[in-house]
Amino acid sequence: MTDLILGIDGGGTSCRAAVARPDGSILGRGKSGAANILTDPNNAIISIAEAARAAYRDAGLDEAGVDGASAFLGLAGTNVGDLTRYVHDRLPFRHTDIDSDGLIALQGAIGDTDGAVAILGTGSIYMGRKNDVVRYVGGWGFTVGDLGGGARIGHAALQEALLAHDGVHPRSGLTDAILDEFKHDPRGIVEFARLSKPGDFGRYAPLVFTRAKEGDPQAIAIVTAGAASVNESLDAIMALAGAPRLCLLGGLAPLYPQWLSEHHRAILVEAEADALTGAVALAAKGYRERTGAAA
Amino acid sequence: MTDLILGIDGGGTSCRAAVARPDGSILGRGKSGAANILTDPNNAIISIAEAARAAYRDAGLDEAGVDGASAFLGLAGTNVGDLTRYVHDRLPFRHTDIDSDGLIALQGAIGDTDGAVAILGTGSIYMGRKNDVVRYVGGWGFTVGDLGGGARIGHAALQEALLAHDGVHPRSGLTDAILDEFKHDPRGIVEFARLSKPGDFGRYAPLVFTRAKEGDPQAIAIVTAGAASVNESLDAIMALAGAPRLCLLGGLAPLYPQWLSEHHRAILVEAEADALTGAVALAAKGYRERTGAAA
Repeated sequence: MTDLILGIDGGGTSCRAAVARPDGSILGRGKSGAANILTDPNNAIISIAEAARAAYRDAGLDEAGVDGASAFLGLAGTNVGDLTRYVHDRLPFRHTDIDSDGLIALQGAIGDTDGAVAILGTGSIYMGRKNDVVRYVGGWGFTVGDLGGGARIGHAALQEALLAHDGVHPRSGLTDAILDEFKHDPRGIVEFARLSKPGDFGRYAPLVFTRAKEGDPQAIAIVTAGAASVNESLDAIMALAGAPRLCLLGGLAPLYPQWLSEHHRAILVEAEADALTGAVALAAKGYRERTGAAA
Repeated sequence: MTDLILGIDGGGTSCRAAVARPDGSILGRGKSGAANILTDPNNAIISIAEAARAAYRDAGLDEAGVDGASAFLGLAGTNVGDLTRYVHDRLPFRHTDIDSDGLIALQGAIGDTDGAVAILGTGSIYMGRKNDVVRYVGGWGFTVGDLGGGARIGHAALQEALLAHDGVHPRSGLTDAILDEFKHDPRGIVEFARLSKPGDFGRYAPLVFTRAKEGDPQAIAIVTAGAASVNESLDAIMALAGAPRLCLLGGLAPLYPQWLSEHHRAILVEAEADALTGAVALAAKGYRERTGAAA
């Protein structure tokens, strides 16, 4: 039978795979558990192979065929350390390319064109592609980065609630709502923050955007600061990769546009496809380049 | 023999004690290991008793006498949870009062007068006393507070270095110095931040103040933001306790004045004494109130 390709989107909560013909037409899809190569590389290897076999079964193919596939994987955490090579060498595919989860999102969103993508979820990362060269800005994580992401927005809201409690900043509907939730005991907020991961802080971000839209001054200040970070990061990626179009992805993508600079809003486009589709496209491209097959 | 009193200053790195006559005149001093009631209450109990016995020995007194003393303890972490009662009930003294480390610092700094104190070290906390009522602002810790403290200043500098690396913000001598230290690998900064405690971030604060004084624009922006937080927190404590004098304590106390508002600078005074002296004064006051002894 003919060669097949695999696109794989591996993240911290699940791993998705799609098997396709070399021209990129998808035959079947599969899903499995977490594939976080940073926290558990061995389990990520199992999840990746499992998602691939599930895609083969979904396509009515023998799952043993994954051994012959050419796979392109977009994985979170590939910018840190040597785990990418470790995972790469233990996967069953005939050919394996691993890159960042951001790259397959970019590919899915804007296809083969030049353009920029901002992934605004719990964190924030910016990518721009010009003449096939991809540049990155941000994405350094909650602790010392990702100022436009939901975790930092939610964190700022909790901090603002404490400042309002102390009378350092004015109270508002936003800070009252948060203090109500913690029974007006600041120690509850401190304890929550001590135990929280970025995603826990991020759960407050939609509330902040909602209140900001309603005119809450403290919420507006927080969202404006987040948007300032997104704006200046987009300016930086545009300076690197001068992009004619911009696509916002991630959970905050629908919430941010009204707060962004006009020159960024003017070039906003909808995503063409999702990250898994991007992974398939990159798998197809890699296969073509290696085999000389026609597109 | 006559009753004696103990002032005790217990912190995360060491515990200091002073034994005194009921009029507050100090007879001897002692020191022991960490007395952090949050992380290790049982060890804190041992350290506190040890420092007290060392003070008795220093005064040429039988250390068994600590059992008869009236002690006033200023301890870090007393605003969180039920550990204060746990520690209180296990100390050997005849009478034990426990309050915050901030209160004994306030007492030492401004004696029995009305006034305000800002403790600007790794964290930041503000206290004001008016007619014997003490009010607090801030001191909620690094994660969601203490914006004027050294940990947040250092944290902001690392974040600024990453933004400079990405071209989002301009480079400066400060960001170059930090990037040099991490061999211009942003992943080194991310990894440092992941493993750091507040004190680790705080070690960058003096560098930021030094560079700001030299005119570095990024350092000035960070110090100005820190000073804005100190200014507005001082405004809040003044609104609660309208203080005629202000004393800055902690490692950043010598560095902050030039960055503060004129109306705060105008009422700055030097500390009268240290926190241990404040603890002795409060022990003496408590003894007088309970026994009706003359001051």
